[in-house]
Amino acid sequence: MRDESIFDLDELNEECGVFGIIGHADAAQLTYYGLHALQHRGQESAGIVTTDGQKFSVQRGTGLVTEVFNNNNIKQLLGSTGIGHVRYSTTGGTGLANAQPLVFKYAKGELAIATKGNLVNAKKLRRDLEELGSIFQTTTDTEVIAHLIARSSAPNIVEAAKEALNQLVGAYALMIMTNDTLIVAEDPHGLRPLSMAKMGEATVFSSETCAFDVIGAEFVRDIEPGEMLVFDAEGMRTTTFAPKAERAICSFEHVYFARPDSNVGGVNVHAARKRMGRILAEEAPVEADVVTGVPDSSTSAAIGFAEATGIPYELGLIKNRYVGRTFIQPSQELREQGVKMKLSAVRGVVAGKRVVMVDDSIVRGTTSRRIVTMLREAGATEVHVRISSPPVKNPCFYGIDTPDREQLIAAQKTVEEIRQEIGADTLTFISVEGMLRAIGRPASERNRGHCIACFTGEYPTVLEDELVLEGKR
Amino acid sequence: MRDESIFDLDELNEECGVFGIIGHADAAQLTYYGLHALQHRGQESAGIVTTDGQKFSVQRGTGLVTEVFNNNNIKQLLGSTGIGHVRYSTTGGTGLANAQPLVFKYAKGELAIATKGNLVNAKKLRRDLEELGSIFQTTTDTEVIAHLIARSSAPNIVEAAKEALNQLVGAYALMIMTNDTLIVAEDPHGLRPLSMAKMGEATVFSSETCAFDVIGAEFVRDIEPGEMLVFDAEGMRTTTFAPKAERAICSFEHVYFARPDSNVGGVNVHAARKRMGRILAEEAPVEADVVTGVPDSSTSAAIGFAEATGIPYELGLIKNRYVGRTFIQPSQELREQGVKMKLSAVRGVVAGKRVVMVDDSIVRGTTSRRIVTMLREAGATEVHVRISSPPVKNPCFYGIDTPDREQLIAAQKTVEEIRQEIGADTLTFISVEGMLRAIGRPASERNRGHCIACFTGEYPTVLEDELVLEGKR
Amino acid sequence: MRDESIFDLDELNEECGVFGIIGHADAAQLTYYGLHALQHRGQESAGIVTTDGQKFSVQRGTGLVTEVFNNNNIKQLLGSTGIGHVRYSTTGGTGLANAQPLVFKYAKGELAIATKGNLVNAKKLRRDLEELGSIFQTTTDTEVIAHLIARSSAPNIVEAAKEALNQLVGAYALMIMTNDTLIVAEDPHGLRPLSMAKMGEATVFSSETCAFDVIGAEFVRDIEPGEMLVFDAEGMRTTTFAPKAERAICSFEHVYFARPDSNVGGVNVHAARKRMGRILAEEAPVEADVVTGVPDSSTSAAIGFAEATGIPYELGLIKNRYVGRTFIQPSQELREQGVKMKLSAVRGVVAGKRVVMVDDSIVRGTTSRRIVTMLREAGATEVHVRISSPPVKNPCFYGIDTPDREQLIAAQKTVEEIRQEIGADTLTFISVEGMLRAIGRPASERNRGHCIACFTGEYPTVLEDELVLEGKR
Amino acid sequence: MRDESIFDLDELNEECGVFGIIGHADAAQLTYYGLHALQHRGQESAGIVTTDGQKFSVQRGTGLVTEVFNNNNIKQLLGSTGIGHVRYSTTGGTGLANAQPLVFKYAKGELAIATKGNLVNAKKLRRDLEELGSIFQTTTDTEVIAHLIARSSAPNIVEAAKEALNQLVGAYALMIMTNDTLIVAEDPHGLRPLSMAKMGEATVFSSETCAFDVIGAEFVRDIEPGEMLVFDAEGMRTTTFAPKAERAICSFEHVYFARPDSNVGGVNVHAARKRMGRILAEEAPVEADVVTGVPDSSTSAAIGFAEATGIPYELGLIKNRYVGRTFIQPSQELREQGVKMKLSAVRGVVAGKRVVMVDDSIVRGTTSRRIVTMLREAGATEVHVRISSPPVKNPCFYGIDTPDREQLIAAQKTVEEIRQEIGADTLTFISVEGMLRAIGRPASERNRGHCIACFTGEYPTVLEDELVLEGKR
Repeated sequence: MRDESIFDLDELNEECGVFGIIGHADAAQLTYYGLHALQHRGQESAGIVTTDGQKFSVQRGTGLVTEVFNNNNIKQLLGSTGIGHVRYSTTGGTGLANAQPLVFKYAKGELAIATKGNLVNAKKLRRDLEELGSIFQTTTDTEVIAHLIARSSAPNIVEAAKEALNQLVGAYALMIMTNDTLIVAEDPHGLRPLSMAKMGEATVFSSETCAFDVIGAEFVRDIEPGEMLVFDAEGMRTTTFAPKAERAICSFEHVYFARPDSNVGGVNVHAARKRMGRILAEEAPVEADVVTGVPDSSTSAAIGFAEATGIPYELGLIKNRYVGRTFIQPSQELREQGVKMKLSAVRGVVAGKRVVMVDDSIVRGTTSRRIVTMLREAGATEVHVRISSPPVKNPCFYGIDTPDREQLIAAQKTVEEIRQEIGADTLTFISVEGMLRAIGRPASERNRGHCIACFTGEYPTVLEDELVLEGKR
Repeated sequence: MRDESIFDLDELNEECGVFGIIGHADAAQLTYYGLHALQHRGQESAGIVTTDGQKFSVQRGTGLVTEVFNNNNIKQLLGSTGIGHVRYSTTGGTGLANAQPLVFKYAKGELAIATKGNLVNAKKLRRDLEELGSIFQTTTDTEVIAHLIARSSAPNIVEAAKEALNQLVGAYALMIMTNDTLIVAEDPHGLRPLSMAKMGEATVFSSETCAFDVIGAEFVRDIEPGEMLVFDAEGMRTTTFAPKAERAICSFEHVYFARPDSNVGGVNVHAARKRMGRILAEEAPVEADVVTGVPDSSTSAAIGFAEATGIPYELGLIKNRYVGRTFIQPSQELREQGVKMKLSAVRGVVAGKRVVMVDDSIVRGTTSRRIVTMLREAGATEVHVRISSPPVKNPCFYGIDTPDREQLIAAQKTVEEIRQEIGADTLTFISVEGMLRAIGRPASERNRGHCIACFTGEYPTVLEDELVLEGKR
Repeated sequence: MRDESIFDLDELNEECGVFGIIGHADAAQLTYYGLHALQHRGQESAGIVTTDGQKFSVQRGTGLVTEVFNNNNIKQLLGSTGIGHVRYSTTGGTGLANAQPLVFKYAKGELAIATKGNLVNAKKLRRDLEELGSIFQTTTDTEVIAHLIARSSAPNIVEAAKEALNQLVGAYALMIMTNDTLIVAEDPHGLRPLSMAKMGEATVFSSETCAFDVIGAEFVRDIEPGEMLVFDAEGMRTTTFAPKAERAICSFEHVYFARPDSNVGGVNVHAARKRMGRILAEEAPVEADVVTGVPDSSTSAAIGFAEATGIPYELGLIKNRYVGRTFIQPSQELREQGVKMKLSAVRGVVAGKRVVMVDDSIVRGTTSRRIVTMLREAGATEVHVRISSPPVKNPCFYGIDTPDREQLIAAQKTVEEIRQEIGADTLTFISVEGMLRAIGRPASERNRGHCIACFTGEYPTVLEDELVLEGKR
Repeated sequence: MRDESIFDLDELNEECGVFGIIGHADAAQLTYYGLHALQHRGQESAGIVTTDGQKFSVQRGTGLVTEVFNNNNIKQLLGSTGIGHVRYSTTGGTGLANAQPLVFKYAKGELAIATKGNLVNAKKLRRDLEELGSIFQTTTDTEVIAHLIARSSAPNIVEAAKEALNQLVGAYALMIMTNDTLIVAEDPHGLRPLSMAKMGEATVFSSETCAFDVIGAEFVRDIEPGEMLVFDAEGMRTTTFAPKAERAICSFEHVYFARPDSNVGGVNVHAARKRMGRILAEEAPVEADVVTGVPDSSTSAAIGFAEATGIPYELGLIKNRYVGRTFIQPSQELREQGVKMKLSAVRGVVAGKRVVMVDDSIVRGTTSRRIVTMLREAGATEVHVRISSPPVKNPCFYGIDTPDREQLIAAQKTVEEIRQEIGADTLTFISVEGMLRAIGRPASERNRGHCIACFTGEYPTVLEDELVLEGKR
C-alpha cells in the first residue's frame, strides 16, 4: 500500500482504480467504500457517478476519497447503479479536469465512463477525431472513447460501445454507464484485471478484489480478456467484443501494485510475494544477521526470505505513515545532518549487523542508493540487496508510469554496475522464471498469462503511437 | 503505529509525546520532525514553543503535526531552543485550549511547559490551589505545575521547579522552558520514559527514540527516575529532585504503545514483540494453518509466533490506512450486510483455514469478538486467539486511557469466559513472567524495572486522588 | 454591488463578467485585479487562461476570485496575453465543470473561450451538433461555440470564428484565445457591453469599465455591435462579422447590474441612477419625512430622490456585508420573532416617520413585501415605494436570470394590485421614458440604443429556442 | 462599516464588541446574529459561551463569526444564557489564545468573562498579581479581572465582582457569567457604551444597538456609568459599584466606529454624521463641482455636506468589498502603473472636476495623501479635503488603537502643514464644538457627555500605567 510519494521519485505508479455496482439501494456509499479500498491506486482525484434510471448524479474532486466525499454530497448521489474512479496522475498538471468518471451529453442522452489503463493508439485516435472536428477538454483516453461512441452510427449504446472498443489498442478495464445500461469490459489481453462479485442481489465490479472484502461482497470471477458484460432492463448478458487473445496480466500487480490482501488472477498477492522472497533466498542465499524489507510493499517478500533462510526478520527500515501533501521538506543542510523524511533506518536494529534488504524493484536506482547509505550510516556492516522483480529494462506503455529507457538503470547498466552504483555488498534480482513461479506459473509457461514486457521487451500488443513517434507508421 | 480509531473503541491509549532540543539553529523544524515521528502517540493537537533567549514564539493547533505546521508558521518559531508536544485526548471536549506546550507569564517572565503522563494527586493539588485563589483555563496537569512554580518563593526557576516537582505524585516526563533555562525531568519511578541524544552540538530529548533516527541524532542515554537536567548559561548539569525509587517503565510501551523501531529501556520494541510471540508459542502452542496479526501493533508478535511454530505468517487481516476523521460511517444496515471499515478479513487467505490470530491486548473484549466473527465469516474453520499481554485487570492511573474496572473484561471474567464471549476456539494470554522475559527481564526480577500494575494491581505509587474518591483521605 | 443573495430570492441576476489583456508582462495578475473588480457580476466560479505564445496556463475554480487564486497559482499563469471570467450560476448544479474560460484541444491546437450573455438558439445548435456526433461536457453556450469553430472548414481561427459567430443568435460579449491570436467580439445588437482600454502598450478589455480604474488603464472606446477585433502577429485589426444592427444595451445595466462607478455606453451609472431618483420624484412626488434606499443598488436613486424633493436621505435599511455562504440560517420560529439576516430596518431612523423607500425593481414582489413589513414593524407610519425601473413584464432571454412570466408580478397584476400585495401606502414605477431619459436618451428615441424588452416585450432578436418550445419552428 | 484593512494602515481601530442574552431558548443562535451585526468591531476572533445552569458550552475561534460558527457547533452551545465577543487584534500575535469570552475554573466553579475596552492600570494590576504568584496565559485585561475575582474573599460572585471592578481604572463594558449568575457592568465614565433590550421575555445586551434591530429586540435603555446589573435566581437587580462619574462616551463612536444604523447615547449615528457634514459646510464652505466621501464611514458626512452646499454628491471613490485576507498584493511596479486595491478613484466622475473629499479623520496622513493623489491622477482639477473630526493630537488609552504621538500628524504639524503634506488645495477639520453640536451636545457643554481626550488631551481618568512608564509613580 502506498501513499503520496515524497521521499521517493523512484517508484513505479499505475494509473487508477475503478469500481462499479448495480442493483443496490446504497450504490453511492458502497462505491465510496470500494474506492476507499482502492485508494492506494490513486490519490490525485476521486469521483462517483450514479444513475436512478432517469438522470445522473455526479461528484468528483481532487484529493483522497475521504476528502472528496462527505455525508452531504454522498447523499446527493441517487440511484442503485454507480461507477467510481480513483486517479493517480502521471502528469500532474490538469487536476480536476481529468477526474473521472467523465460525464458527457450526446445525441442519445447522458454517458459516464471510467477507465483504467492506457491505450497505445490514443494519440492516433485523437488526431483522427480532431480532423473530424472533435474538441477535447481532457487529456484522458476516456474522452477518446466517448467521442468514438458518440460518432458511432450504431443503433444503441451496446453496439456503439462495441464499435468503439474495437478501435482501441492497449490495456484497459472500463465501465460505461447510461441511464438504462451498464457496460463493463476488459481489453483483449486482460492486462488490467477486473473482477466481479455478488453482494446479495447486487453485482459489484472492482479492479482489485480487496474492495470486495471491505464491503462483504463475495468474489464470483474475473472478467475475461475481450469480454463485455451488459446490464440493462433485460438483466445481465455477456459477450465478446474482440477475439480473445492470450491473457497477459501485468506481473507488477503481484510484485508491487496490488494490496497484499487482494487476489490477482486467483492468486493471493501477499502469498505470491512471500514466495518471491523464498525463491530469492534459493536463487541468491547470503550469510547475514537480519532481513528487513522496504516498507510497505516489500514486507511480504522480506518475511518469505527470512522464513526460507532462518535469518530473523526485523524492522530495520521504518516509514512514517503521516507524511502527507503538507509535509514541510527539510532543507539540503538538514538532510546532510541526517534528517530523513518518509523512511528511516533503525539504528537499534541494524547497527553492527549484516543486513539483507529486500525491495520490490529498482527503477532509476536513486532510492536504492539512498536506502543503502541510510543503513550504513545507521551502522550496518554489510548490506545485501535482494530485489523481488527482475531488472526493469523497458518502459511500460499500458498505464504504468515508467521513466524513459535512458533513465531505467537496468536498461543502461549490468547488475554488477548497479550494485556499485547503489553501494551494496551484493545485489541480486529474482529471475523472470522465479518470479513467474512465485506468482504461480509453471516455468514451462513462461510469458503465459502474465505481461513481462518491462523485463523482456516482448509487448503483447502493437505499440501504435510509438511506431508513429519512431516514424514507422 | 495507530491512527484515529474509528472501528475500535477497544484500544488502550496513552496521552502524548514530548520532544525538546537545545542549541540548534533549526530548533523549530527539528522539533517538527521529532513530533512527526511521535505522531502515533497523539493526534488531537500539536504545539511547539521556541525561545531565542529573549522571547517565546508559539504555534499550537488541533490536528496532526502536518496540519498544525506549515512552511510559514514554522519559520516564525525563532531561536535555537524549543519544546514540542503531541496530544491524545482522553476526554475530547476542550480541544485547542489543552494543546501543549502551555505558555504562561508569571512574575519572573515567560514559562513554557510540556508534560506527558498523569499525576495521581492532580485533583488534590488543583483544589488546594483554587482555595488559594488560583484560576484554571485548561484541564491539564501542566497548568497545575505552572501554578506551583509561580507560587514558589524559591529564588530561581530551577529551585522553583524542584519545589513544584516534589509536590507531584504520578507518572510524567516533562520539559520546562524559560528564556534562559531548559529543565527536563522524569518522575521518581520513571514510568514515562524520556531519552536524550546528541545531534552535533545540540542536545535532543524525546519520549521515544524513534524520533532520533528520523533526525539523525545519536542516542546518549535514558533520563533516570527522579532526575532533573538543567540547561542554562552555565551549560548542562544533572541533579536529583527526589529520592530515586526503583524504575518502573510502563510495560505497555513494549506491548503496544511504542513504535516498533524505538528502543524502550534499551530494548528494541519490535524485537521484544517478536519474543512475546515466540514465548506465546511456547506457552500455548496450537495446530493451525496460518498465523495472522491484528495490524499494526500485533504484526511483530505474530511473526514471532509464526517463526517459533513454523506455521506460515499471512496477512489474514488488513487495515485501511486512509481512514480519517472525515470517513463516512456505514449505517447499521450496511454493517449488517458486511461493510467493514478500518479492518477487514482477507477471504483468500483465511477461507478453509485454521487461523491463529495474535493481538496485543483485550480490554473490553468487543473488538476481539468482532475480529473473530469477521474471520469466521471470511471462512476460517478455527480461530485461535493469542494475546501478547497478560489479562488487564486494573485501570491505569498514570496516563493510559483505560476504562473502569467494570468494563475491563479480564477483571470480570475468567479466561474461559472471555474465550466464549469472543467466540474463539482457544484463547491464551501470555504470562506476566513470559512478557517480562520477552522484554528482557529475568523471571526472578518480576516487577522490577517495569510497571505491571494493570495486570497485578500493585501500583508503584500511592493513588492519592483515588483514595479521596473512595473516602480514604 | 451585490453579494450572495440569502435573504432575497427576488433579485435579477446577470451571468458573468469577462476581462482580457494583451501585451503586458503581468497579464495574469492584472486579469486577477480586473476580475476582482467584476466580482459583483458572478461569485460562483472564476478562471484565468493565459498564453505565452507556446502553450496555455489554466486556473479555474469555484468561489470568489480571492478564493480561486493565490500567490502560488497566479505565478504559474505564464505569458503576456490572458482572458478571465467570473461566473454567476443560474442553475446551481454543475459548479466547476462550467467554470470559464473553457479550454479545448482541436485539430489546430489549443483554444480558450470566455463568454458572457446568452444565446437564444443554443438548444437548436446543440441538437444539431449532437446529431453530428458531438459530445458535451458542460451546459455552457461557450462549448457550443467551440464545437462550431472546430467543425469549421475555414483555413484559420479568424475565419472559423467568424463562421461560428454568424450562427449564433443572442446576446454576448466573448473572447477567443489561441496561442497566437486573441479575438474579441460583441453580438450584432450590442446587448452585452464590452469596453476597451489602454495600459501603456497593453490593450485591455472588460465587460465593465470599473475594472479599468482599478488597474489604472485608460478607457478608449466601447466595442461596436457586430464588431470583431483580432490581435495576432500582425497587430490589431477590426472587422465586422455581421451586419450591424441598432445597438440595444440592456437597460438593466444602468438600473441595477453595473457598479455605480462604471460608465455604460458612456454614461456614469451612479449619475444615471441619481437622475432616475430625480425623475421618480417628478413623476410621483409624495409628502414624507425620510427617504431611504434598499442597499446597495438603490442608494444612488434614493439620494437623487432626496435631492429633488428636499426630504432628507437617511439610512433606514441596512445590509450586513458579512453574510456569506456559511451563514447560519434562522429557523422559521426565530424569523417570526423578528430575526433578520441580510437586511434590517433601522428603528431609530424610521420609527414614527413617513418613509419613502426607493428600490431598483420588483420581480416577484416577495422582497418588497418583506421590506415594507420590516419598515412598518420598525415603526414607520407610512411607506411609499418608488421603483427606479418600469414594471418587468417579460422574461429576458439574453442572460438575465428572470423567472417565468407567471412569476413576474407585473405580468400578472396591475400597479394597484401590486401595491396592495406588498402593503405599501403608495407605489410608483418610473416610466420607460423617464428611465431612458435618466440614462441619457431623448424621449423621441424610445427603444433606441437600449434593450427594453423586459418592460415592453419588443425583443431585438428572433427567439429561436422559444419558438421551438412553443411549437412554432 | 469596515473590513480587514489592506490598503490602509492609517485607520483607527477599536477593540471588540460584546453581546449577551439571558432567558431565551435560542441563546447561542441569537448571540451569533448579534455578534454578526457587531462584526465591524472585530474580525480577528469570535466566541460564544453559554450555560444551561449546570455547565458551560464554549466555542471560540479565529476569523469571522461566519467562519467560527456553523450549524453543528452552534447546536452544541446549550442553555438559555450566553455571552459573546468579537475581537479586533491590536498586536496581531497571539490569535486564538486571546479569543474571548475567556473561561476559567476557580474555587467557586466556572467563570466566563467578555470585556471590551481597555484598562489604564492593567500593567500595574498584572504586576501586583504576578507578585502574588498568579500566572497569565493571555494578554487580555479580562484575565486580570478573573484573577481579581478568584482572589477575592467576598462570599459570592456579585460581591467578588464588585470588589474586582473597584480596582479597575479605564474604559470597559463587561459581562461576567457563572452557571447561575450573569453580571453586566460599565466603567464609571461610561466610555464604552452598552445597551439593553427586550426580546419577549429575554433580556439582551449589546455594545451597539444595531444588533437589536437584526434580531428584532426592542431597545430599553443604555447601561449607566458605574452601573452593575445582576441576573440570578432572584431575577434582575441593578446596583452601582462605583461613584458615578460624568458620562464620557468616546466621541469617535459617532465619527467613525459605530455602524450608521446604531444609536449611540440615544443619537442615530448616520444622522450625527450628516450633521457633521452640514456643519463642516458651514465652517468651511468651498466652490466645487462634486462632493465625494471616502467609503464607507464618510459617506453620511459627505451626503450632509452635499445637502448643505447644493454641490452634487457623487461616487468619486469606490471601495472593493471583496478584498479579504487572501487578496494578492500588487507589486511595487504594478502599483506604479496605477493598480489600486481597496479603493479607487472613478475617472468618469472626477475628471475635470473640482472635488470635495470628505473623510472622517486624519491619523498619520498617509492615506489622505494617497487618496488626494489618486483623485488628481483620475483628473480632478482641485481637491478640497474636509474632515469630520477635529485634529487627533493625543493617543487613546481606552481601547482605540492609535499610534504614538510621534506618528499622529496633527500632534506634529499645523493644519497648513498637513494640507501641504497630503497635497490638498484646501483642508479643514471640523471644530470640537461643531462635532459635539453634530452629535447633539450644546456648545456650552463642551466635553460633557463625550470623551474628547484625543483632540484636547483632557483624559477623563488618571492614566496609571502611563505615569509608571513616565516614572511618575
